[in-house]
Amino acid sequence: MAVTETPAGNPVPTPVPVLHEDARSGNCYKIRLTAALLGQPLDRRQYDILDGETRTPAFLSTVNANGRIPVLEVEGRFLPESNAACCYLAEGSALVPPGRFERADMLHWMFFEQYNHEPNVATLRFWLCALGEERLSQLQRAQIPGKRAAGEAALALMERHLATREWFVGERASLADVALYPYTSVCEEAGFRLDGLPHLRAWLGRVATLPGFPAWEKG
Amino acid sequence: MAVTETPAGNPVPTPVPVLHEDARSGNCYKIRLTAALLGQPLDRRQYDILDGETRTPAFLSTVNANGRIPVLEVEGRFLPESNAACCYLAEGSALVPPGRFERADMLHWMFFEQYNHEPNVATLRFWLCALGEERLSQLQRAQIPGKRAAGEAALALMERHLATREWFVGERASLADVALYPYTSVCEEAGFRLDGLPHLRAWLGRVATLPGFPAWEKG
Repeated sequence: MAVTETPAGNPVPTPVPVLHEDARSGNCYKIRLTAALLGQPLDRRQYDILDGETRTPAFLSTVNANGRIPVLEVEGRFLPESNAACCYLAEGSALVPPGRFERADMLHWMFFEQYNHEPNVATLRFWLCALGEERLSQLQRAQIPGKRAAGEAALALMERHLATREWFVGERASLADVALYPYTSVCEEAGFRLDGLPHLRAWLGRVATLPGFPAWEKG
Repeated sequence: MAVTETPAGNPVPTPVPVLHEDARSGNCYKIRLTAALLGQPLDRRQYDILDGETRTPAFLSTVNANGRIPVLEVEGRFLPESNAACCYLAEGSALVPPGRFERADMLHWMFFEQYNHEPNVATLRFWLCALGEERLSQLQRAQIPGKRAAGEAALALMERHLATREWFVGERASLADVALYPYTSVCEEAGFRLDGLPHLRAWLGRVATLPGFPAWEKG
């Protein structure tokens, strides 16, 4: 497959990558956000995760054996995991810091997002907003206080980090900000409060005014 | 800080990076494994996670505000998240594939490891071996069947992937293999069975015979 160079030197894949997604998912929005900030067009194919459309035999055998979206189809192959897809799209661009430590530090925040933030903030939002509390199992309900506390701890850690800087890594927006933005921006839907987190709110505002920033069109 | 070039062209940091770790943790072993395969010396500083040594005010204010190990101290700064530290050490080396898709696919498996594998396989091992079932809370006990099923699904996915290839990405070992090795290698301690997973067992054997491979000295 061809890879062309943009004027800014960012190699972009051609033909247009296909994002296999459910537009309501923040993990999918991350990839659209990355692409939009890079000026990279994406084709989009929708699946209803609530209707099991990512668990069909065809999906599992072709798109992702793990039964999850998003998956980025690029170079004729399928790339699961939202943050890996963002790294693919942004490689060599200004969304990846130039220094070796900063590149690894960007990944540190992206792994933090998937380990400490998403399983708490995004899962609570999914349980409470998409499924609805009355449809949760007893075990899910029992896990709510723990996920609430862990989500609050993740948001508090981000707040303290942002007290002395504008972006998570270095002096400009990177994929660390892109990865942390979607579920933080809707954390109040899951019952988290941004009131006492002024630095986090200011950062959300900064991300939302980046050139090319796309709103989260939830389908 | 100085960065020197090895004969193989792999830039290695000097002075020697310091690994803040608990030797019993597979996430810490990942970093030692990466360093050993690269021939990169590491200094090691031990903390007892069961004794709260990563939750002291000094640790939280200096090493990692998230209260976790491993943390790699390098270039006079602190880098949390095991997989980010591996990426730092291995950047530009043969443990990172040369192609753009493969580099992102390596990250795909590293995010899979932190999202689908570690919270199930490693957490069950920690609960059952380090804490002991009698010390678990009622909520932890209630989560065991779900974590058992999710861990089995992760191992089964790896088994199917390895049915047609020797390494997770490309034609040789990469950080994807390094990240997935530690907790897979001890999954039977957490009650998982490798009997029916011959490709996974063969892969464990291949990793363990890589030049420079270090055994997991659990302290």
